[in-house]
Amino acid sequence: MAVNRRILLAHRPVGPIRPGDFTHTTQPAPSPGPGEAILHNRYLSIDPAIRGWMSLGDSYIEPIALGAVVRGAALSEVVAVRDHPRLEVGQRVVGLTGWEDLTRVGPDFIGRILPADTGLPLTAALSVLGGNGLTAYFGMLEVGRPRRGETVLAGTDDKVAWLTGELGFHAGINYRTARAGAGLSAAIRAACPAGVDVFFDSVGGDILDAGLGAIRVGARVVICGAISQIDATRLPPGPSNYIRLLTKRARMQGFVTLDYADRWQEASDRLARLVLDGRIRHREHIVEGLRSAPDALIGVLRGENTGKMIVRI
Amino acid sequence: MAVNRRILLAHRPVGPIRPGDFTHTTQPAPSPGPGEAILHNRYLSIDPAIRGWMSLGDSYIEPIALGAVVRGAALSEVVAVRDHPRLEVGQRVVGLTGWEDLTRVGPDFIGRILPADTGLPLTAALSVLGGNGLTAYFGMLEVGRPRRGETVLAGTDDKVAWLTGELGFHAGINYRTARAGAGLSAAIRAACPAGVDVFFDSVGGDILDAGLGAIRVGARVVICGAISQIDATRLPPGPSNYIRLLTKRARMQGFVTLDYADRWQEASDRLARLVLDGRIRHREHIVEGLRSAPDALIGVLRGENTGKMIVRI
Repeated sequence: MAVNRRILLAHRPVGPIRPGDFTHTTQPAPSPGPGEAILHNRYLSIDPAIRGWMSLGDSYIEPIALGAVVRGAALSEVVAVRDHPRLEVGQRVVGLTGWEDLTRVGPDFIGRILPADTGLPLTAALSVLGGNGLTAYFGMLEVGRPRRGETVLAGTDDKVAWLTGELGFHAGINYRTARAGAGLSAAIRAACPAGVDVFFDSVGGDILDAGLGAIRVGARVVICGAISQIDATRLPPGPSNYIRLLTKRARMQGFVTLDYADRWQEASDRLARLVLDGRIRHREHIVEGLRSAPDALIGVLRGENTGKMIVRI
Repeated sequence: MAVNRRILLAHRPVGPIRPGDFTHTTQPAPSPGPGEAILHNRYLSIDPAIRGWMSLGDSYIEPIALGAVVRGAALSEVVAVRDHPRLEVGQRVVGLTGWEDLTRVGPDFIGRILPADTGLPLTAALSVLGGNGLTAYFGMLEVGRPRRGETVLAGTDDKVAWLTGELGFHAGINYRTARAGAGLSAAIRAACPAGVDVFFDSVGGDILDAGLGAIRVGARVVICGAISQIDATRLPPGPSNYIRLLTKRARMQGFVTLDYADRWQEASDRLARLVLDGRIRHREHIVEGLRSAPDALIGVLRGENTGKMIVRI
């Protein structure tokens, strides 16, 4: 590979992102310096978090610099090394690289080296064993902590048929039709007549407020993200129903999967076994070609994907 | 005592309460039926929670019925019993009775029987050893859990001189002048330059939002009340900065001191020792006469008291 195709951040978006926020460019293929390695990115994980990193502001890692390659998780192959402390040619790794063919990484790169064979397709490392799977794993087991017999409410979309049919959930809520009809609160009451013990929220806005309106005594509200306000140019109002944390002696807690890095391997191994046993089912939504990454991200932010969005380079 | 003076809830207030929301009346002194006791209320604890119970709506105990005596904690003396399972004439008890001279209670009454002598004035059972003291005790020790070297931010008022002088706090914020000046967030940044680990909030509104804006990684936000919206006729917007619970991996948790009833005696004993040792200092604001209870509550809700508000009957 003589050239390295790259997608750079051209503008900091105001509101929804557009294809023009990105620049497509090339550079000569990089060579490793001392202690470095070259990763060939094969699959990109397209995640809402990338939209957050495109803006300045408070987050858990620094924003993407203007003119820099768009940061994102990827599944990559080590194609060159020069005295790197951990990496060897031929290894497959998952880590934060970016939207380019080749990424040069230093000795501090904290990617996860994949075992030779998990029994699952390679892309599982970005979906059910990747950021999404690990986020659900730690968010539910460490923060939400559901117990037998409790009611769990998760922000869903119009894939209700899949949830209640193939996946065996008791109910699903299509938030678009619920908003237009009797309202989100009524839909939650109908689906969860006894109230909600664990609410896993990655949406924020009216969905978080309606969820808080339904919590039971001792409930756990897991804050995983706030995709409803990811394009906002100023912070919208918070949930009025936060005060129910008081009357219901409940807690609302945020978490970041990065904080559990020392347990990713354990979680990934356990998730792999659950997938192989048929106890976890998942979907992937794979699109082709590095150039499709911006549209793939726009689609994720609109909720148009069915399953984990991945770009195959 | 031949008559029982009583203050009843005459109207459900809309917005701030007024003296006309209460009716002053009398009834013949009650006698105990089988399993009952008569309590002579000597000191009333005047708490913002009473305002909440005057309105319909979601709370942790039922509203005060229209025409019923106003509910509130009191320090009372047992003056008559008839086969009551726990109470004996002459005992002093703290429990939820109300704004009247005499309260008839049944076998299920869950008041706390006071020891003969704690070494502190009797009113301490309603202040530093009462609901306020116990709320601070459990809210800080069980929910906030401050550790050595951390920064604690508590909603304060214009008693800053007392806080930083006699009580030895590092800083205090006068929220009224801060709002009018550079803003609450700037005042918190100035007082807590490294950010906040524990935020004990009983105010809500812009104070909660500013506090959330200053939290550090792993912070605990204790929701004890929301006095800023206690008169609101509809729920105001929640805190925009709730999303910092995510980026700061923090939790916001409500609690109700009633849930710790099985540990009140332990907490009260420990608080008494801390007061006797001079390690806890506190103030009481005592006003005279049952008839002054409505004005005392209005004053508490305006923040006009200095120290725990108590009515001596």
